[in-house]
Amino acid sequence: MISEKLLQQIDFIKEIDKLKYILRKTKLLNSNRNENDAEHSWHLALMAVVLAEHSNEPVDLLKVIKMVLIHDIVEIDAGDTFIYDTQKNHSNTEEERLAANRIFGLLPPEQATALIAIWEEFEAGETAEARFAKAMDRLEPLLQNTSNNGGTWNEPGVNYQKVYNKKSVIKDGSETIWEYAEQLINEGVEKGILRK
Amino acid sequence: MISEKLLQQIDFIKEIDKLKYILRKTKLLNSNRNENDAEHSWHLALMAVVLAEHSNEPVDLLKVIKMVLIHDIVEIDAGDTFIYDTQKNHSNTEEERLAANRIFGLLPPEQATALIAIWEEFEAGETAEARFAKAMDRLEPLLQNTSNNGGTWNEPGVNYQKVYNKKSVIKDGSETIWEYAEQLINEGVEKGILRK
Repeated sequence: MISEKLLQQIDFIKEIDKLKYILRKTKLLNSNRNENDAEHSWHLALMAVVLAEHSNEPVDLLKVIKMVLIHDIVEIDAGDTFIYDTQKNHSNTEEERLAANRIFGLLPPEQATALIAIWEEFEAGETAEARFAKAMDRLEPLLQNTSNNGGTWNEPGVNYQKVYNKKSVIKDGSETIWEYAEQLINEGVEKGILRK
Repeated sequence: MISEKLLQQIDFIKEIDKLKYILRKTKLLNSNRNENDAEHSWHLALMAVVLAEHSNEPVDLLKVIKMVLIHDIVEIDAGDTFIYDTQKNHSNTEEERLAANRIFGLLPPEQATALIAIWEEFEAGETAEARFAKAMDRLEPLLQNTSNNGGTWNEPGVNYQKVYNKKSVIKDGSETIWEYAEQLINEGVEKGILRK
């Protein structure tokens, strides 16, 4: 007899396949192909595995990984918001909250509650795990943009100060990774791929 | 001063971006679009999070997740081999071993050794973690094929017995998930999307 619980979990697993169609603004390294949210989330998870030692504070790596694996799932319903979008706030919109309830709500109630809590913790950015997870989320597009002649830095309204402000979140997760990130940003200005 | 260690880790992080271009034979759910290895690995990781309770034996979930995140990385060099390919053995080829050494070898030596060991453990399939990780790897394309009128089951030489044999690996990881998987395979025959 197949349990109702397993069938709910399978429903969730099928639903999240849609994350593979949600395209981000950033492109793959040295590429013209937009990255999708699923492969982005995979990359962050493995970055967390490899870079965990650089976290400012000790982190529960399993929790960091869960965070980055699920952090964009709400975009199945709410879509990707460009980080430098001035019209629409990047996070915590009502739309994203409804999406979290609908999508995680496919799971058995206990699991739904647990994953929504992890998503909210990531969004709030107030724990060591959330800070480190956010550092990963900011670092990956930095590597992509610097490999693509600036990439999304060429979008209207994006400049050094805005990039610096958004990226400085990395410092809250890791001082050592921030040192590297800051260098990439400064090199971007020197190379003329980021407007001062 | 940015450490040599961090730079090696960044090199690895950049290199594995290539996994996003390695296409599998299977297509996304209800879709004609091939899945790539990076989004496939993301899906398995989240499946492991959600389905861990069904493992036959208690598992170290963090290790299972690391396994599925890295299990296909060797395909950056060695390419994807179709599971029902009769010409080429699916796993543990010399080519894959060289790929593991090259790609994980970009990391600082201790991390390279640790991740190669996890990859080898997955390939050997002899621990509880490897068995559960392999169950995830077999379950995902089963969901995809049944949603796509058989999908890769329509390839020449594929039939019920071959699918059953390959999929029965799921049983070693989870009896309860196998019960569900077996039902999907039998329904496939009944619906005429899998040749007996």
